[in-house]
Amino acid sequence: MKIDVLSLFPDMVQNGLSQSIIGKAIDRDLIDLEVTDFRDFSVNKHNSVDDAPYGGGAGMLLRPQPIFEAMDQVNAKNPGHKRVILLDPAGVTFNQKVAEEFAQEDHLVFICGHYEGYDERIRTLVTDEVSLGDFVVTGGELGAMVMIDAISRLVPGVLGNEQSAVTDSFSTGLLEHPQYTRPPEYRGLKVPEVLMNGNHKLINEWREKMSLKRTYERRPDLLEKMTLTKDQLHWLQEIKQEAAEK
Amino acid sequence: MKIDVLSLFPDMVQNGLSQSIIGKAIDRDLIDLEVTDFRDFSVNKHNSVDDAPYGGGAGMLLRPQPIFEAMDQVNAKNPGHKRVILLDPAGVTFNQKVAEEFAQEDHLVFICGHYEGYDERIRTLVTDEVSLGDFVVTGGELGAMVMIDAISRLVPGVLGNEQSAVTDSFSTGLLEHPQYTRPPEYRGLKVPEVLMNGNHKLINEWREKMSLKRTYERRPDLLEKMTLTKDQLHWLQEIKQEAAEK
Repeated sequence: MKIDVLSLFPDMVQNGLSQSIIGKAIDRDLIDLEVTDFRDFSVNKHNSVDDAPYGGGAGMLLRPQPIFEAMDQVNAKNPGHKRVILLDPAGVTFNQKVAEEFAQEDHLVFICGHYEGYDERIRTLVTDEVSLGDFVVTGGELGAMVMIDAISRLVPGVLGNEQSAVTDSFSTGLLEHPQYTRPPEYRGLKVPEVLMNGNHKLINEWREKMSLKRTYERRPDLLEKMTLTKDQLHWLQEIKQEAAEK
Repeated sequence: MKIDVLSLFPDMVQNGLSQSIIGKAIDRDLIDLEVTDFRDFSVNKHNSVDDAPYGGGAGMLLRPQPIFEAMDQVNAKNPGHKRVILLDPAGVTFNQKVAEEFAQEDHLVFICGHYEGYDERIRTLVTDEVSLGDFVVTGGELGAMVMIDAISRLVPGVLGNEQSAVTDSFSTGLLEHPQYTRPPEYRGLKVPEVLMNGNHKLINEWREKMSLKRTYERRPDLLEKMTLTKDQLHWLQEIKQEAAEK
C-alpha cells in the first residue's frame, strides 16, 4: 500500500511511524510511506504557507496554492485512483469500519492541516473528510499517524500473527475479556482460578462471558448493534441478574 | 502541568511532542513532560516485559511488574494527587469535555499498552481508562500523544492567542464555518463576496449561519445537545427550507 502524507512536520510523521510494528511494515515494503513537506511548494517570501482570513478574525489559514501544488506532484508520480483524506473536525468519525474500508485501497493520501484552519478551497482536492473524534488538536499529524497505524495493521502480512487483527476489541463487536500473565500472584492480586486449570471449554466460556459482561457494563451501545447467539443471550440474562443482586 | 508517559517507545513520544505548539510549551516550561521506558524496570533476562496469557491464546501480554515499579518511581518523585490514564478500547471515549477536565489537573500519567494487551492487574493502578475511539491501533503511544496535544493546548499560555481555543469546533458546540484566505480566486475557485465587502455585521451573520448549516448537514447530533438562540432557530428554519427546495 502506498501512503502519502502532506504535512508541515515531516520529521514528526516519519519518526512516529518508523517505530513499532508499522515501522517494520515499512522496512519490509508492505507499506510505502512518503511524506511531503508542502512548505517546499510555497512561492512566498519566507516560505510562508498561511495568511490572514478574509472577513477578519484571529488565526492564520493555510493558503490553497502550496497544497494544490503538492497534490499535483503526488498525482504526477502516481496517476491512478487514490483516496485523499483530509483530517477535519467536521468529517465522518474514524472507526474500525472506516479503517477496514481504507485498508482495501492501494493508495491513500493524508492532508494534515495546521494552524487555525485552512482555505475552504482545499476541500475540493479531497475524497474523504475524516475526524478522529470530537476534540480539537493543534494539527492533523498525530491524527493521521493514528489512522495510518489502525489501517496499516489490517494490511495482510503487517501483523506477525494473522489471527491477532480479527480477535481484537471492535473486530468481534465486543470488548476484550480480561487477560492475565505471570506471576499467578503479584502484590496480593491473583489470577482467576479458571484460567489456570487447563480446562479449555471452561476457559473459553469464561472469556466469552467476561467479554460480554464488560461490553454490557461499559459499552451497552455496542451490544445493541449486534445479533447475539443463544449462548450469549443466556449469559447476558445471568449477568443482568448478578448485577441486580448486588 | 506535569505529564508522565510510561511507554516502550520513549523516543517516539519525545519526538512527536517536541514539535509544533506543544514542543514550544515544553520549551517554555508550561508543560513538564517526562517519558519513562518501563522496560528499564524489567528484572527478566533479555529485559522482556511480556509473557504468554494464562489459559492460552495468541499474543503476548504486558506483565504487571515493570509497570507497577515504573509507577512506584513516578509516585516517589511526585507523591501528590494525580490522574493515571490507561489507554484502552474499553475506556470512556475521549472528547473535548474529557480534555477540558484533564486540563484542570496538575499531574497526568499516561500508561501506554502495546503488543496484544496487558495483564488485568495493571488496571488497579489507574484512575481513568480512556479510549481514543472505536478502532484498534498497535499501541497506546500515538493515542496518548493525541490526548496530550488536545489537553496541553487548553493549558493557559500554551496557545499564542488565548481566543483561539474557545472559538474552535466543539468548543462552541458547532462545527466551524468555511474560511478563506488569499488569493480571491485560485484555479477558478472564488472567495464568497460577503467576506470581502468589509461589512462585519453581514460577515458575522454569514459565518454563524454557515457554522449552523455545516453542523446541521454533517453532525445533527451536536445540534440536539444544544439550546439554540432565537437567531439560530430562525436560520435553521431557512437552512431546512433551502435544503427542501433543492
